[in-house]
Amino acid sequence: MSAGWFRRRFLPGGPGGPLPAAPRSPRPRASPVPYRRPRFLRGSASGPAAPDGPRRPDARPVRCPARGRALPWNAGYAEIINAEKSEFNEDQAACGKLSIRRCEFGPEEDQEWLTLCPEEFLTGHYWALFDGHGGPAAAILAANTLHSCLRRQLEAIGEGMVATPPPMHLSGRCVCPSDPQFVEEKGIRTEDLVIGALESAFQECDEVIRRELEASGQVGGCTALVAVSLKGKLYVANAGDSRAILVRRDEVQPLSSEFTPETERQRIQQLAFVYPELLADEFTRLEFPRRLKGDDLGQKVLFRDYYMNGWSYKCVEKSDLKYPLIHGQGRQARLLGTLAVSRGLGDHQLRVLDTNIHLKPFLLSVPQVTVLDLDQLELQEEDVVVMATDGLWDVLSNEQVAQLVRSFLPGNREDPHRFSELAKMLIHSTQAKDGSPTTEGQMSYDDVSVFVIPLYSQSQGSSGH
Amino acid sequence: MSAGWFRRRFLPGGPGGPLPAAPRSPRPRASPVPYRRPRFLRGSASGPAAPDGPRRPDARPVRCPARGRALPWNAGYAEIINAEKSEFNEDQAACGKLSIRRCEFGPEEDQEWLTLCPEEFLTGHYWALFDGHGGPAAAILAANTLHSCLRRQLEAIGEGMVATPPPMHLSGRCVCPSDPQFVEEKGIRTEDLVIGALESAFQECDEVIRRELEASGQVGGCTALVAVSLKGKLYVANAGDSRAILVRRDEVQPLSSEFTPETERQRIQQLAFVYPELLADEFTRLEFPRRLKGDDLGQKVLFRDYYMNGWSYKCVEKSDLKYPLIHGQGRQARLLGTLAVSRGLGDHQLRVLDTNIHLKPFLLSVPQVTVLDLDQLELQEEDVVVMATDGLWDVLSNEQVAQLVRSFLPGNREDPHRFSELAKMLIHSTQAKDGSPTTEGQMSYDDVSVFVIPLYSQSQGSSGH
Repeated sequence: MSAGWFRRRFLPGGPGGPLPAAPRSPRPRASPVPYRRPRFLRGSASGPAAPDGPRRPDARPVRCPARGRALPWNAGYAEIINAEKSEFNEDQAACGKLSIRRCEFGPEEDQEWLTLCPEEFLTGHYWALFDGHGGPAAAILAANTLHSCLRRQLEAIGEGMVATPPPMHLSGRCVCPSDPQFVEEKGIRTEDLVIGALESAFQECDEVIRRELEASGQVGGCTALVAVSLKGKLYVANAGDSRAILVRRDEVQPLSSEFTPETERQRIQQLAFVYPELLADEFTRLEFPRRLKGDDLGQKVLFRDYYMNGWSYKCVEKSDLKYPLIHGQGRQARLLGTLAVSRGLGDHQLRVLDTNIHLKPFLLSVPQVTVLDLDQLELQEEDVVVMATDGLWDVLSNEQVAQLVRSFLPGNREDPHRFSELAKMLIHSTQAKDGSPTTEGQMSYDDVSVFVIPLYSQSQGSSGH
Repeated sequence: MSAGWFRRRFLPGGPGGPLPAAPRSPRPRASPVPYRRPRFLRGSASGPAAPDGPRRPDARPVRCPARGRALPWNAGYAEIINAEKSEFNEDQAACGKLSIRRCEFGPEEDQEWLTLCPEEFLTGHYWALFDGHGGPAAAILAANTLHSCLRRQLEAIGEGMVATPPPMHLSGRCVCPSDPQFVEEKGIRTEDLVIGALESAFQECDEVIRRELEASGQVGGCTALVAVSLKGKLYVANAGDSRAILVRRDEVQPLSSEFTPETERQRIQQLAFVYPELLADEFTRLEFPRRLKGDDLGQKVLFRDYYMNGWSYKCVEKSDLKYPLIHGQGRQARLLGTLAVSRGLGDHQLRVLDTNIHLKPFLLSVPQVTVLDLDQLELQEEDVVVMATDGLWDVLSNEQVAQLVRSFLPGNREDPHRFSELAKMLIHSTQAKDGSPTTEGQMSYDDVSVFVIPLYSQSQGSSGH
C-alpha cells in the first residue's frame, strides 16, 4: 500500500519518528531483499514454526533493516521484496502454528469463568501480511502481535467452538430450556465464532499499536491480510488493499475484497455527513468527477452524495470548491488527500498536512472475513491460496497469477521447495525489465510480498484436531 | 408488509387518524378484492395509460375502500387482494407511460439553465407497488406522487441522458478540456443518471408524504417497489420487503433485495452506536439470540455488535437486559419492537408505543436500484418480470413462482389476457385452502399484489425512443 506524497510530506520526523523515506528508486532491486522474520516464528526448514504462548509485544518495537528470507515452512511460503521506497522494509509477514489451549470453567461464585489449562486442544495455522506506510513500525508491531491477540480471543471462546451449534452460555449453564433453539434459529455456527474472534483480534491489535506507538513517539499504519486454517476451514480476514485468491485447476476465486477510499466511498461520505466537524470546513464530502474550480460556480455539474449509487447534477456553490474528501481515481484515489486505503491498523496519529484533521475516524480496523470450507473442496495437490500485497496486484491480475501458478507447479513436482520457488517467481514477474507476455511490460515499484499456501496439506489433518 | 402488534397498538386513532385495523380474518376473501386505481392512470383496455403532467397530489389524500380491478394495460398486469387486515386496502399500485419532456438551456446570464419545452423526447414505462402499514394513506400518496417526482427528476437531467457519457456540465459548457475524460474515468454512464433520478425521486416523494400527512393529521408508511423501462433498460428500485424477479425459460434472477431489520442489522446498530440518544435508554443496540433476563446477568452469552459479522461472547450487564433494538427472527423480526421493514416511505410520525422514540431515523427512503439490459437478453415472448408484495413471497419461493409462470403461459398463448390471468393465478395460489403441491398448504394472510410485466414488448421499441 502506498501513501500519497501529501501524506509523506506531512509525517513528522525527528527523534523517535520514522526515518524519512528514501528517494524512490526508478526500479527496485532485481533480486529479492530479505525481510525481518517476526520473532514469534520458531520454525525450522523441516517443519511448522511453533509460536510461543500469548504475550504482549516488546514495549518498544525494534526497527529493523530489510533483512530476512523466504519462510522455510512447509505449510506456506513467503517471499518479500523491498522496492527501496524506504530504508526499512514496510512490508512485514508472519506465519506459524496456532495453538489454542483449553479453557476450563472455574467456580461460578467469583465469576471467574475461565481458567487456562496448559494443554492444547485445537491447533491451526496462521499466515499474515502487513503492508506498512509512514515507516515499518505498525507493520512490525502487527506481525509480532496479531497472532497473540487472535489466540487470546480464540482461547476465550474455546469451549464454544467445540459444541455444534455453539452454546448460548459459555459457562455451560442453561438459563432457558429453548436456548439451543434460539441459537439454531439465528443460524449461529462454529465458524461465526472464529469470524468474531478475528474481528475482535484486529481491534485488539489496533489498540496495542496505538498504545505502543504513542509510548515510543512513533507513527505509521499498515494494512493486514490474515489467513487462518482451523478445523477444516480457511478463514481469510482482510483490512486494506492486499488480496488473497484461491487458484485451482479450473477455478480462480477471490477470497478477499480491497478496502480503499473508492470501494468504501458511501461509508466514508456518510460519516462526514453525520459528523461534519471531522472535515473542519476544509473538505467537501461530495464527489465530483474532478476537483471543481471558480469557473464551475453556478453551473450544474455531476455529483453524488453518500446515499447515492447513481449520479445526478447539482448547482455548484462555493463550499463545493473545497478539496474533496475522496480525491483521484483508481490507484491515485486518496482519502483526505492522504491515504490510499480505508481499513487497516495504526494511523492513530495521522493527520492531514498542516491541519488538525485526523484520518482515523474514517479508517476502520475491522476486517472482512470470508470462509472456505476445505473439506467440501475435493482438493488437488496443486490447489493453492496466493496472498499478496498490492505491489503484486498492481501488475498482475487474478487470472494472470493463476496462469503463472498453473504453468509453474506441474513442471516442478519433484522440487520440495516448489511453493517457495513459485512465490519467488511471482515476485520476479513484477520486476521484469523487458516485459514478459504475462505482465505486458508492467513493473511494480512498490514493496511486494507473496504467500503461497498449498491447501492439500491443510485438508490432510494438519489443520487442527 | 405487516407491522407488529406492538406498533398497531401504538398508532393513535382519533379524528383524522387512520381507522383502527379490522380484526384479522383467519382467511382472506377467496376472490380478489379490487383496489383503488391511482388517478393518474388513464389507460384503456387496449393501450398503455398516459399519465398527466407532473403535479402535486391533492392536499388531502382521499381514503378509499378496497375497490379496483386488474389493470387492463398491455405492458403490465396487476392483481391485488385485500386480506381484510383493514377496512381500507393497504396495498396500492400504479403504472403508466412515463413521458419525459425536453429541457432546453436558457440564457446563461440569469443562470436559468433549464426551460421546459412541451414536446416529449423520451418515453418509458412505470410500474409501482406500495405496501402500506398504519393505514393506506402513505401508500395512496405514493401511488399518486412517486411517478411525478421521478418524471421531474428525469426532466431536470434530460439533456444529460442523451449524451454518452453524460456531460460534466448540464449547461453544455466545457470549463476544462479534459472534462469528458474525467467523466469517462469515473465510469459514469447514462444509466447512473437514471439510478440517481430514482434515488432522488424516492426522497422527494418521502418529503411530500411527510408534508401531506402532517397537514392532514394522518399517519402511516409504505414500502415501495418500482420498475421503470427506459431506453432499452429495466430499472428496479426497491425500498422495503416487496420483491421483483426475472423469470425466463431457464433462468430465475432476483432483481431486488429485501430491506428488513435483519438484512440491515449493521446499519441500524451503527446508527444507534453513533447516536445512542435515539434509543432513549429504553433499548440495547446489541444483538443476542433471545431477549436476556435476570438469570443471564454475569454470564457470558452470545452477542454481536454493529461492526461484527461473526458472533462472540460477552459478560451480561444490567443494560443488556433492555429490549433489543432488533428483536425476533425472520418474518417476526421487528425494529424497535414496532416495524418489520427498514426502508420505505412515510412513517415520520411513527413512535414506539408509550415513548417518544421515533422510528424514522432508522428508516431509509433510499432505494436500491438494479439494472437489467433488455437489449442484451435476447428476450423470448414468455420472459416476464414478476413484482409482488411480501404476501406472495411469504408463501411462494422464487422457484415456485417461476414454475407457475412456466406452466401457465405456454398453455394460454391464444388468450390476450394471459398475463393478467397469470397475475390472478399467482394470487389465488396464495389462497388455496387445501394446499396445492406448489404452496404445500401454506396460505397468505396478508394483502397480496402482483404485477406481471411481459418483457418482450419492452424490447420491441415500446420502451422509449
